[in-house]
Parts: sequence; structure tokens; C-alpha cells
Amino acid sequence: MTQTAGQSMWGGRFSEATDAFVAEFTASVNFDKRMAHQDIQGSIAHATMLGECGIITPDESRQIVDGLNAVKGEIERGEFVWSVALEDVHMNIEARLTALIGDVGKKLHTGRSRNDQVATDIRLWLRDETDKILALIAKLQAGLLDLAANHTRTIMPGFTHLQTAQPVSFAHHVMAWFEMLSRDYDRLVDARRRVNQMPLGSAALAGTTYPIDRTITAKLLGFEGICQNSLDAVSDRDFAIEFTAAASILMMHLSRMSEELILWMSAQFGFIHIPDRFCTGSSIMPQKKNPDVPELVRGKAARVFGQLNTLLSLMKNQPLAYNKDNQEDKEPLFDCVDTLSGSLIAFADMLPNITPNSENMRAATLKGYATATDLADYLVKKGLPFRDAHEVVGSAVALAVQKGVDLSDLSLAELQGFSALIGDDVFECLTLEGSLNARNHIGGTAPQAVEAAIERGRVRVQGY
Amino acid sequence: MTQTAGQSMWGGRFSEATDAFVAEFTASVNFDKRMAHQDIQGSIAHATMLGECGIITPDESRQIVDGLNAVKGEIERGEFVWSVALEDVHMNIEARLTALIGDVGKKLHTGRSRNDQVATDIRLWLRDETDKILALIAKLQAGLLDLAANHTRTIMPGFTHLQTAQPVSFAHHVMAWFEMLSRDYDRLVDARRRVNQMPLGSAALAGTTYPIDRTITAKLLGFEGICQNSLDAVSDRDFAIEFTAAASILMMHLSRMSEELILWMSAQFGFIHIPDRFCTGSSIMPQKKNPDVPELVRGKAARVFGQLNTLLSLMKNQPLAYNKDNQEDKEPLFDCVDTLSGSLIAFADMLPNITPNSENMRAATLKGYATATDLADYLVKKGLPFRDAHEVVGSAVALAVQKGVDLSDLSLAELQGFSALIGDDVFECLTLEGSLNARNHIGGTAPQAVEAAIERGRVRVQGY
Amino acid sequence: MTQTAGQSMWGGRFSEATDAFVAEFTASVNFDKRMAHQDIQGSIAHATMLGECGIITPDESRQIVDGLNAVKGEIERGEFVWSVALEDVHMNIEARLTALIGDVGKKLHTGRSRNDQVATDIRLWLRDETDKILALIAKLQAGLLDLAANHTRTIMPGFTHLQTAQPVSFAHHVMAWFEMLSRDYDRLVDARRRVNQMPLGSAALAGTTYPIDRTITAKLLGFEGICQNSLDAVSDRDFAIEFTAAASILMMHLSRMSEELILWMSAQFGFIHIPDRFCTGSSIMPQKKNPDVPELVRGKAARVFGQLNTLLSLMKNQPLAYNKDNQEDKEPLFDCVDTLSGSLIAFADMLPNITPNSENMRAATLKGYATATDLADYLVKKGLPFRDAHEVVGSAVALAVQKGVDLSDLSLAELQGFSALIGDDVFECLTLEGSLNARNHIGGTAPQAVEAAIERGRVRVQGY
Amino acid sequence: MTQTAGQSMWGGRFSEATDAFVAEFTASVNFDKRMAHQDIQGSIAHATMLGECGIITPDESRQIVDGLNAVKGEIERGEFVWSVALEDVHMNIEARLTALIGDVGKKLHTGRSRNDQVATDIRLWLRDETDKILALIAKLQAGLLDLAANHTRTIMPGFTHLQTAQPVSFAHHVMAWFEMLSRDYDRLVDARRRVNQMPLGSAALAGTTYPIDRTITAKLLGFEGICQNSLDAVSDRDFAIEFTAAASILMMHLSRMSEELILWMSAQFGFIHIPDRFCTGSSIMPQKKNPDVPELVRGKAARVFGQLNTLLSLMKNQPLAYNKDNQEDKEPLFDCVDTLSGSLIAFADMLPNITPNSENMRAATLKGYATATDLADYLVKKGLPFRDAHEVVGSAVALAVQKGVDLSDLSLAELQGFSALIGDDVFECLTLEGSLNARNHIGGTAPQAVEAAIERGRVRVQGY
Repeated sequence: MTQTAGQSMWGGRFSEATDAFVAEFTASVNFDKRMAHQDIQGSIAHATMLGECGIITPDESRQIVDGLNAVKGEIERGEFVWSVALEDVHMNIEARLTALIGDVGKKLHTGRSRNDQVATDIRLWLRDETDKILALIAKLQAGLLDLAANHTRTIMPGFTHLQTAQPVSFAHHVMAWFEMLSRDYDRLVDARRRVNQMPLGSAALAGTTYPIDRTITAKLLGFEGICQNSLDAVSDRDFAIEFTAAASILMMHLSRMSEELILWMSAQFGFIHIPDRFCTGSSIMPQKKNPDVPELVRGKAARVFGQLNTLLSLMKNQPLAYNKDNQEDKEPLFDCVDTLSGSLIAFADMLPNITPNSENMRAATLKGYATATDLADYLVKKGLPFRDAHEVVGSAVALAVQKGVDLSDLSLAELQGFSALIGDDVFECLTLEGSLNARNHIGGTAPQAVEAAIERGRVRVQGY
Repeated sequence: MTQTAGQSMWGGRFSEATDAFVAEFTASVNFDKRMAHQDIQGSIAHATMLGECGIITPDESRQIVDGLNAVKGEIERGEFVWSVALEDVHMNIEARLTALIGDVGKKLHTGRSRNDQVATDIRLWLRDETDKILALIAKLQAGLLDLAANHTRTIMPGFTHLQTAQPVSFAHHVMAWFEMLSRDYDRLVDARRRVNQMPLGSAALAGTTYPIDRTITAKLLGFEGICQNSLDAVSDRDFAIEFTAAASILMMHLSRMSEELILWMSAQFGFIHIPDRFCTGSSIMPQKKNPDVPELVRGKAARVFGQLNTLLSLMKNQPLAYNKDNQEDKEPLFDCVDTLSGSLIAFADMLPNITPNSENMRAATLKGYATATDLADYLVKKGLPFRDAHEVVGSAVALAVQKGVDLSDLSLAELQGFSALIGDDVFECLTLEGSLNARNHIGGTAPQAVEAAIERGRVRVQGY
Repeated sequence: MTQTAGQSMWGGRFSEATDAFVAEFTASVNFDKRMAHQDIQGSIAHATMLGECGIITPDESRQIVDGLNAVKGEIERGEFVWSVALEDVHMNIEARLTALIGDVGKKLHTGRSRNDQVATDIRLWLRDETDKILALIAKLQAGLLDLAANHTRTIMPGFTHLQTAQPVSFAHHVMAWFEMLSRDYDRLVDARRRVNQMPLGSAALAGTTYPIDRTITAKLLGFEGICQNSLDAVSDRDFAIEFTAAASILMMHLSRMSEELILWMSAQFGFIHIPDRFCTGSSIMPQKKNPDVPELVRGKAARVFGQLNTLLSLMKNQPLAYNKDNQEDKEPLFDCVDTLSGSLIAFADMLPNITPNSENMRAATLKGYATATDLADYLVKKGLPFRDAHEVVGSAVALAVQKGVDLSDLSLAELQGFSALIGDDVFECLTLEGSLNARNHIGGTAPQAVEAAIERGRVRVQGY
Repeated sequence: MTQTAGQSMWGGRFSEATDAFVAEFTASVNFDKRMAHQDIQGSIAHATMLGECGIITPDESRQIVDGLNAVKGEIERGEFVWSVALEDVHMNIEARLTALIGDVGKKLHTGRSRNDQVATDIRLWLRDETDKILALIAKLQAGLLDLAANHTRTIMPGFTHLQTAQPVSFAHHVMAWFEMLSRDYDRLVDARRRVNQMPLGSAALAGTTYPIDRTITAKLLGFEGICQNSLDAVSDRDFAIEFTAAASILMMHLSRMSEELILWMSAQFGFIHIPDRFCTGSSIMPQKKNPDVPELVRGKAARVFGQLNTLLSLMKNQPLAYNKDNQEDKEPLFDCVDTLSGSLIAFADMLPNITPNSENMRAATLKGYATATDLADYLVKKGLPFRDAHEVVGSAVALAVQKGVDLSDLSLAELQGFSALIGDDVFECLTLEGSLNARNHIGGTAPQAVEAAIERGRVRVQGY
């Protein structure tokens, strides 16, 4: 697989061929061929521009474009033979082009360099993938809206510190997930704007001596803007880091949801049912049904965090402009996109199909003094300052804990022992429905408030 | 420092006081008192809203607001006594308020919880700090524009792989830094939008039973929007992660600039002079003058990366809603802001004051065959396909390396030995100025192109 | 706070004083004064060696040692005045020494540099802290052994995928924690060996021209070895990274334990009681008792991971020898040690005091088909291949799930419907005790096996 | 590719087949088949033990071992057909075994689970890979010793802060690298001890009801010890984290070496020549020769840091025992091993073949006042306290900088203007050789000291 000096694209200056292991170690074609489509797309735009600017003849331009389309066909049909000796996707395609159309193929690289070429390819690729991911988020969000719509009155314990805190509806909880994803969507839209800038025309690092017109290529490729400095354009990778950071936050959210699904599916919680097709069993314990998909997604979040870490460390000390270190940006980015996409596909299919066990949820809510705050609020409304009311209810809870009963199981006399302000209207505020309905404002858990949130959510998703 | 049960804000339910070490270990007041200003600002808005909505009387509202302003005065004058036994900034201030104005102070906490309170404080604080950081970036960028404006014709080697590649101007290099910072600015502006959303009104996790009006507090506090889900609002920290991610990319950029400053100040490069006041010496080597500021900033970038990592790991597995883990968000975020601010202050002062050594830069550019690409382009314009021209020039460079001279030192006859297309007009394209001027398009290094970039930069910064 | 040129330790060569902000920004005394004790300890050894080698006179050596002890006294009594203008702990102490004993103090720095001095200080400091941490681990392990010893027959569900898997004893679970900590202990012992190597004598980077004897200082300071290369000795920080990596794994273990404590203290599990003094309440919900200590430790693990990340990124691209970036190693390392120590103190006090609720544990074990594997093993022992037995039991569990009962609640006839091999001895293997006792081999959960493990644990801890 | 319920290894309990995408998403066979050799090795040992303990008959044991050897042959010959429907390497091999030898194959899984099986496989695999990596380090170290041996008198500038500090020999610099690698070697040896512990026999999480003898399997598989707690054994992954941490430090070292190689190969330094076969050229700039291998290795260090980060985050919150998250440990670990191995292979081949340019190194050393410390030491030996001598030399350097000459170019009169202690013997100490030879103690740069270090190094490497 070793190249002999003189055969390669830089042979003229070298007296010794690349070592075989080194050729393999430094080659990128095994992973960067994934951008073949974008490489050809960029080359077609470049050749078209060269023709329009008179840098090559219209006929040469046409020949190159036709040749590139022929190469594209070979790749799509699986006929293309990739060569490690040709290092990367760019040289593989250019070499094949020249084999097909002869010497005119050698003119394609006029006025550009692999440095601006690869930066263009990766941005085109990431733009395409971002669009797919946005669509997956939208699909998942739509599924969550449907799930929530059915459960605005399904009561479950809201937790803080994993201790029962106050009653909330299952819909309200699901809509918290929806909100997280809305921010993720917006972050990716912002990141996409910075991805969608064109480096092409920066050549190796300083621009080119040919009379190129970058606005032509930018328009052909759908770029929103043109990178304004050639040194920066070929060496910057912060668009990839920003994407990976947004992906990390999104995966962190999916991991949090996974944590909850796993908890809820435990025998101790028993809050939900996940369809069998998202679960697996055990090779040794015949009774097991394991929440594999959420567990795996929880694990995969860590993977994406590592990739973010890698990209930051990778870029940290690089002087301008392009250094070979940058080749190490691709595998983390590719894997980040695959991990995120796979996780979203799985979640968009799974989440709308989970079934809450409303009886277990209700029973759990009744057990943890979830309406203690309501009792405090009741006392405040009767005139007690909040801090004093809090103290009174704390003592009432201590008695209930001691007796092993809920607050609503204490007698009126017992309750009045803590405060004379308590009347028999107190029991109303101690019911779960009373507690839920009372939190009726933007962001609150009352059914009316959550229904309004679902409606706003529908408008949002339709507006994407 | 231990609390006795019953004294504390949750004493009613507990039979045992908090352990002294535990009280210290779990307290946050030592670092969260930094948000005292925002805590009072939020409490004033909350009390005002409670009054306007009739949840407390106008007179109570006024008393609380006056009391809070009195506390604020004590803090500003350094008279306030912070207590670890009171756990955090919120309880310290509320306890002092009640000491000052009596029982009505206990009504301040009506309809809110520490969970939405701390989330509000930290967002207000981060919004303020973001604005300061944006101003520092703008200052640094303005300094870079001035520096660049003086050096559009100062020629230095452009590097790839730290090997001499092609001539660029020092201004062009400086403008690459400008571009990086422009993206950082935009990223922080985008992040600020998501920071500037109000959690207040979410109470502990589910909203509140009082008839609050969140639009009033949002308006008083200058929030652009209201968090739409109470569970999400009290437990979300992705605004902090997004900020830290943007800060990490910014610090990565400052680290890259630092790397270059350190290289350029080495005896081997000798490209720049950094004023003594940004340098320090050695306790043992009397001749040393060390680029301490860039070295330290390069190191500090790693610190911010660590904080990003911490915040992601911190949130990864948390079920809704608030968990105590979240308390660990503050120190990393505070340190991130301090590190970033300090680095920007130092750079905004230092960078406009570096002096390029144009003679050394020019001499270096003349040594590394920087115009080899120009020779190839020359041949292409004479009709040779690019790949063939590349081969020809490679052989010419090999000869020059062997003879220990530059390309422009080869004789016409020697050059013509590689290609008959070479005429005596070739020597023009081999000059540094010829090479520089020829790259005249958007993003190129030609003086005209860079001047235009500087002009666009000025418009940008003025428009901030 | 600015220094005037000529006053400082490197003034001779400089024409301009350090900028005030820069002096503050680059100074380290605010955090490195923490190593004052080790700095003086190292200086005393160095001065002693200089005297013994005749590089200074015995009298000079004595004066310096006496002076250093005087400085030490001032620091211990809180009388010492630290100055940012003097940059760091080293210059602060040396300046004070010279103020106290006159010009002879200026001889202390003979044959060394701040580069080897700081590397020595930090290693001495970390060695001391490692010893304290090892003692804390031992204390925590001893507490776990006591806890386990009381519960070898307390049955709880063993989980995989957070689904009930098989019965285990609470002691067995606690001993899993013990095992994790044993590896952590060993890792820190291994790391300590590499910490305990002496850089002193490397001077700035190349060694010194004075006839020093490094074996004398090494012996005085208790170092196990001498760093063999001066360039490496002053620039290496992998001892700190290795320590932080070991600390990260330890904190990861404490975080896993925390996760379990939090789960077990939830109303849904109800497996344990944590004493009130390790918990806190809520400012709004009077009924809350939150597991603050485990939650906080879970959060703090992320903090240490960030520090590890920082140190690796910090060192990644540094050329030899010392660079100022290295100053950024101290704050992460200090905070790592504090975080780890605090977490261990809290755990060593808390864990032996948790109380399992054995009734709830037992009830939970009875609910999740925990003895299904035992039924499969029963069938295998009757002659069925394991894979077939697994299939049979899977069907039996499906029936039990459908009927909402446990396996042991199925009738013999029902069970025999799945396999004729089942006799009425089957019910014995379906009891929790039967299942527990049957796993009686090294590492198994049977009481006898766990008692042996506890015994081995006691021997281990006593042998530390 | 979907499984129908009942076909799979856990079919009995499930009513619905796994979703096709989910089967693909959760399967691990595509990467864990890499451990096929170790899986079979472990299974052979397990079957042998089952036979020796009478859990299966000797004949059954023999049939299984023969069958496993047959499967091994199929894999080695590339004939084995891997199936995603069978999830992982374990089920693929077991299914094939049963196909080959019939129902007795189903007895192999008696007394074990995939949980202890996979933990055993990964440890066996990592132990093997660690041994290969140790051999690569030894090879690289041996190469460095040879390189150093030729250059104990080749003088180059030693740097701190990338500023010329003092003269060192190239051999001394190379031996600093040697020292780093020695610690890496030792760390991996320590880690290997903790890798080489046997989980087999822990079964799913609690041990097994069969009368297994774990000492038999441990001996057959070459394990140094047996994991002492079944819950811990199946869920612990800190051996992988510890390995990855050691790998991160090693890669950090290779990255630091790379940074230096890249600097030294720049036109500005010109310190070394790297053979062409480790370099590549440019597609556009015909003169370029880029240090690809060091650049790529520098980048790859970041990759390994990310993997360490991933593994820590992955494990941080997992309750005992095995969770599916753990499946995500393999790809990072595999990639870590591949990255580290590839980098070491490249370095072990490249480093001994770099050639220092001693003239350029010497010229650089003469330029940066590298002997200023020697002048200060000279003055101290004449009786001036070190701090005063430092001040004197600082002023002399300032004069030399101003005149643009080296210290040794100042006249005796000029030098005496700074201190009357200076005599004409001063010029001796200002030579490079004088400076180098004077640092003659353990760890110093004097040729004699470095030769001794090389000799100690040879003994070390031979003793591996």
C-alpha cells in the first residue's frame, strides 16, 4: 500500500516514499469517504464557478462537471474502489475523475486547496445532518404533545431530591421534557447559522491568485455567508464544537429522561409500562424485562460528552492555520451525529408509546405528604406569615409520620392542636385534585395551565 | 455553628440538629453570597408583584421593599454579617429582613421557593456578567482592528503544519483573530437570550396556589420571557452549560492566540515584542523575559474546559425536579466567568500593544519557499494543468533545497530546465509583494482585501 | 500593588514595571501560600544540605534554618503578611527571611530555582494529603465492615437494570462498596510512590553548577527516590494527574453509593433511614427530609472529573521545560483534595449510621420474581439443559405476571404444566433464604461467604 | 433482522418481538466480536471447571471444549457468520456451539451469566493488549537510549517559557522523554495487576447455586486473583478507567514530544530532520514537507482524553449491579487501545530516526544569553549573595540586549563595570561547554551525568 515517490500528489519534493504503516496511520479515506456526496457537490460548484469566471473554459467546466457526476454514479452504485494510498476522499475522487476524463481533470484543483475543500465538505455534511436531527426533534416533540394531551389529569408525585414534594400531572412532567427539547431545537438552529458559512476560496490559507468569485459558489451551495478571512476559514473548527456542545446538552436531556423511565419502570415505582419491543431480557434470569433503550441512551450521553471534550482539547493550542491535528475532528463529529440521531430515532418511537400506570402514581402521591405545602398556603391565606405556617405544618407532618398516616388522615382536632386557624374546609385543600387545580398560572401544573402549554407547543412545532 | 432543631427554616419536622461538619459541607453561603445583589433585586420584584396582586397588602409590600433596600445598603457598606448556619444567601437575607422589619418579613417567601429563587438569581447574575463580557470582547476587537490597520503591508510567513506556506500580512493574521471573536460574540448573544428567561413563579416545582402574575415580575426584572414549565424551570441548568460551552470556545481561541504569541516571542521566531509589563522574569536566570500572560491564559483555557465537563456530568442523570447536586453548578460557573473576564481584560490591554518585528518576519518569509504556489499558479496560467505544475515546482524546490537557496535565487536557465513555459516574467511572481497582492478577493490576504475586512469589522463593532 | 522595576527579583533586565492588573492576574500567592509549611520544610532541608556540602558555611546554614523556623512561627501564629507584589509563596517567605536575618538570607536560593522548589513543595504537600485521605478511606472501610457484620442475613433485592434480579444480603451489597474502596486505596498507594520522588536539585531546568548532594535533601525530606532528569523534574505534572485520576474513580464510587442511598431513601424504595443530621429540609415544603449529603457528593464527583480533564488539557501541548501554564495546576489539585477529603469525612460518619428497613427490603424481594433463576437451576439439576430451563421458567413467570402473583404462589399443578420435572421440593428453592444460602462460594451472597469476606476485610484494614 | 418472540434467549417471558431498529441499536456484536478469542478462552476454562467439579460430566465437558475449538477455527478462518439478531459475541458463539454439538452446548451457560462472562472477556482482552503496549513502550525507550547515547555532547538551548534558558545536551532532552515513558510503563504495570482479577463465577450478580470452584478457572486463565464480591465484579469498570487514565497520561507525553518535534522541524528552529517517510506534502504548495505523524499523534491525545471522560461520566450514577449503560464501555476502550498502540508503533519507528542539526542548535544556544545563570553562579562563588548576583547579571544582560551582542561578547571592562569581582576567568564559565559540564550531578545535563542516566536506563529496559 506504500506509495512510490513521484506517484503521489506531492511527489516532486520528496526523496523517500511514505512508510506503509505511516500511510495507513495518516490516511483518512476510511472515514472521510462518508462526505463523498458533499465533496462532489462542492467540486461541481467550484468547477462551475471556474468556468463562469473564465479561469477554465466553459467546455472544460462542463467536462469536469459531467465527470464528477459520473464518479458520483459509481459511488452510489457501490462500484467505486477506494484507495488508502490516495489518502483521503478528495484525492480518491479527483484521481478517478482524471482517469475518466483525462488531463482536464487536473484543472479542477485550480484555485483551491484540500484545506478549504475539506472545510467546505464538512460544513455541507453537518448542515445536512443538522436538518435531519431537527426533524427528529420535531417528531419527538409532536409525540410528547400527544402523550401529554391524554394525561393532564393523571396525577403523580412531583419530586425534589427524589422525595415526594407536591402532586403534578403526568402531562406536566412530559411537558417539562418538551421544554428541554425546545431549547435544544433553538440551539441547533443557532448553530446551523454558523455552520452554514463558506470557506471555499480560502485555498491553502491565504486565498488564491486566480480571479475567483466566491459569491457564485456560495449561491450554488446554499451557504448563507462567506468566511471573511482565509486563515481562519481553513483552521476554524468551532462550528463543529458548537454543534457537539448543543448535542451534549440534548443527550444530557435524553439521559435525564432515561433516568426517569428506568426509575419509573422499576418494581418500586411501577409508574409506567414500556412496550416489550424496546426492552430485552436476561441470559440467566428468566423473569427479567430490562429497559435497554433508555439505559443505552443514558450511556451514550457520556460518549458525546467525551467527543466535545476531545474537540476542545484538540484545538486548544493550534497555531494558525491548518495543522494535521484537525484530521482528528471528523471521527468524533461523525460518531456524535450517529449517536444523537440513533438516540432520537429510538426515543421518537418509544416515548409516545409508554403507558402510565395511573393507579400506582396516585397511590404514591397519597403517601408522601404531597399536600403539606397546600396546608401551609391555607394557613397563610388565613393570615399566618408563611414562615410560621411552615413551622406549624412541619409539626403536623412529624405527628403524621409518627402515626404512619397521611395529613388528610389526621382528625380536625389533631390539626387544630397545631393552629386554631384550621377549620373543616382544610380537607378540601388536602386532596390531590384540589392541590393540582390550585396551581393555575403560566407554567403551573393545573390542567388548564398545562392544556394551554400543550396548545402553545403545537403552534411551535407546526411553525418549525 | 450547628443549628438546633426548631430554629432552622425547616425545623418542625426534624428530631435532630444538623451535624456541624454537615452544616458546613452543605452550606453554600460562602460562594452564593456573590449573588446578593440579584437576590435582593428579585425579592423586590416579587414583593412588588405580591402587593399588586393583592396577595399581601400594599403597605406590607412597601415595608418589605424598604427593608430589602436597607439590607442592600448593609451589604454594600460591608456591614452585613453572613452566617453559615443560615445555609445560603437567600436565608441570610430573609433572616436579616425579618430582624429589621419584624413579622411582615416572613411574608416575602409567599408564593415562591428557594428553588425558583436561586434559579432566578443565577440567571440575573449571569445576564449581567454576559453583558460585561460582551463589552470586553468588543474592546478587544476594536484594539485588533487598530493593530491590523497599521500592518496590511507587513509581510510574515503564513504557516500550515507550522511550515512556511505562503506570504500573508500581519494584518490578515490579526483579522483571523478578529473573526474568531466575532463568532464568540454572536454565540454569547444567542446564549444570553436563553439565559434571560424567568423561572420565578415556579415555586418549589409545581407552581403556587397564590394568584400570582408572572408577567409583572418578568417586566420588573427585564426578562425577555417566562419559563413555560415549572418542573423544568427549577431544575434546568442548560443556560449555564451553554454559556460555559461558549466560554470554552472563546478561551480556546485565546489559547490559540497565546500559542502564537509565545512562539513569536521566542528567540527562534523573533516576530514580536510584548511590553515588559505583561511579562515576568526568573528567580534564577537573570536574562529571562517570559510571556507570562499568554502562557497563563493558555493554561486557563483548560480550566474552563474542565468546568464545562463538570456541568454536563453533574446534570446527566438527574431526575426532575431540583436535586441538591445542582448546588454544585455555582462554583464552576463563577470561576468560569472570572477566568474568562480576567483573560479578556488582560488581552484587551496587551494585544493592541504588541509590536511586530517586520524585518524578522520578512526574512523568515523569504526563507521557506513561500512563493512556490505562485510559481505553480504561473505555470497554470501559461497552460499547464495544476497537478502537472505542482509536480514541476516540487522538483524545482528539491533543487533549491539541495543548493540551500530560495526559488528566486535559481537562474532562469535552471528554472527553464523544469519547464519550457517559464519566461523571465517569472521573477515578478516570486516576490513577496507580488504574491501578497495577487490574493485579492473576499477573505484573501491582499492589502486591499484586508482593508475592506477591517472596514467591515469597524461597522460590526460599532453596531454592537 | 504594582512593583517598580528594580525592586523585584528579576528587576535588573526590565525597563518597565509590571502592570497592576497583570501582577494580580499572574500572582499565585493567594492560593499557593497553602504550601507554606512544605516550602519552609524544603528550604530547611536545602539550607542544611548547602551547609553540609560546604556551599555555604555551617553558620550561614544555621542562621537560615533558624530564620526559616522564625518565619514558620509567624505563619502559624497568623502574623505573617502576604504580599501579592511578591508573586508567590516562595518569594514571600524568602523576602521575610532576608528581612529577619539580613543578607545571608539571600544565599538560600543558591543552587536551586523556583521551578524545582515549587515542584518539591507540591509533591510534599500532596504526599501529606494522600496520607490523610488513605486514613479516611480506612475509617470508612472499617465502618462498612461493622455495618455489614450486622446484616449478613438481612435480605434485599439485588438489581440489574434496576429490575429485581436475585435476593442478596444487605451485607453483601455493603461489601461491594468495601471492595471498590479497597481498589481505590491501592491505587492511591501506587500513586503515592510516584508522588514521593524529589525534584529538588534540578534547579531551573538543567541542574546546577554547585556541588550539591541530592541524596542528603532526599533523606531529610523522606523522599523515596530522586527525579532522574532535571528537564523532566521541573515540568512533569503527571503525579498530580495520576492522583486526580485515582480521586476521580474514588469519587465515582462515592457517587454510585450516593445514587443508591438516594434511591433507597425515596418513599418508593423505603429501604433505609439516614439520620436527620445528614439531611436538610425545604424552605417551602414542610414535610421534606432530603438526603443532602449523598446528593451533594454525587454532584461533587463531577467537579473532580472536571479537574482531571483540566490537568490533562493543561499539559497536553507543553514543550519542555517549565511553562507558566503549570501554575494552573494548583487550584484544581487543591480543590480536588478538599472535595475528596470532605466527601470522605461525611461518608465515614454517615454510612455506618444508616439503618436498613429490613421489612421493606424483604417485601420488595418477594415481589419481583427474584427466585426465577433458582427455579431454572432446580430444573437443570433435574437434568434439563440450562437454555431449555430458562425458557420453561420464562413461561412460568409470564403466567405469574398475568395472574399478579409471585412464582411461589403458583400451584404445583400449574408449575408442572410447564415441566414434568418439577416436584414438591421446588418450593424450598423458591424461598428467599434458600436462594441466598445456595450461593455459597468466594464472592457469593450466602451468609457464610459474606462473613468470610468481612473477615478478610478486617485483616486488610488492620494491615494498612 | 427482527427476532420473533420465543426464538431468542429470553423469549419465554415476552409477548412482542424486539423492534428491528432497536435490535440494531442495542446489539453489540459489531464491536464486541473483537473479544471472540477471549470469549472462547473463558468458555473453555469454564467448561473444564464444570467438568472437574462434576456439574457436568467429563464427557459433556470434553464435547463442549472440542466444539468451542471448532468454533474458534471457524472464526480464525473467517468462516463464522455473525448475526446481529443474536445480539453479542457471547450468544453468537454459544448458538454456533449448539448448532455444532447439539443440546449439550446448552449446558455451557450453567453457573454463569453474560454479566460475569463479558467482564471476564474484557479483562482478558485488556490484559493481552496491555502486554503488547508494554512491549511497544520498551521498544520506544530502547530507541531513545540509542539516540541519546550519540548526543551527550550535542548542545541545544534548554527552554523555559519557550525562552532560551540554559544550555543542555540533546541527549539530556531525549532522556527527559525516557523518564516520562518509564513512569507510564510503571503505571500500566500497576493497572495490569488490577485488570488481572477474575469476575467469572459471579454469575448475574449474586453468585451461583452450583458448586463451582473459582480457583480452577482462575488458574486456567492466568488470573492473579479472584474478584471478592459478585455484585462489584459484574458492575465494576474501574480497571478500564484506570487503564484509560494511564493511556491518557502516556498520550499526553507523546503529544508533548510531538509539539517539540513540530517546533524543531519548523524553519525557525531548524533543529531536526525527520525522514520523508514520516511526512507528507501539500496538494497545493509544492515546497511543503509536513510533520504529519507528530501532528496526528498530538491530535489523537485529545481523543483518548475524551474516552477517559466518557468512561467516568458513564459510570458516575449507576446503582449496582450491571446496567446496560456498561455496554458503552467497549468502543471507547477499544479505540483507546488502538489509538495508543498505533501512536506507539509510529513513534518507536520514527524517533530513533530523527537527526539533530547540531550546528543550528549550537547557534541558537549562543544567541539567548543561555549562560547568564553561570555568570551569576560565578559571582556567588566569588562571595556575592545569590540575589545580588542575579541583579548584577540582569543589568549586564540589559546592556548586551541593548548592544545586540551575547554576554561573552562584552569586554572585561564592561563586565567589571557591573561588579569588581569579575576577573578574566569569567569567559570560561560563559562558554557552552563550560556551562554544560558544570551541571554534573544526578539529574544534571553534564555528559557524565547523562551517560550514567543512559546506563541506568539500559538496565531498566533490560529488566522489564
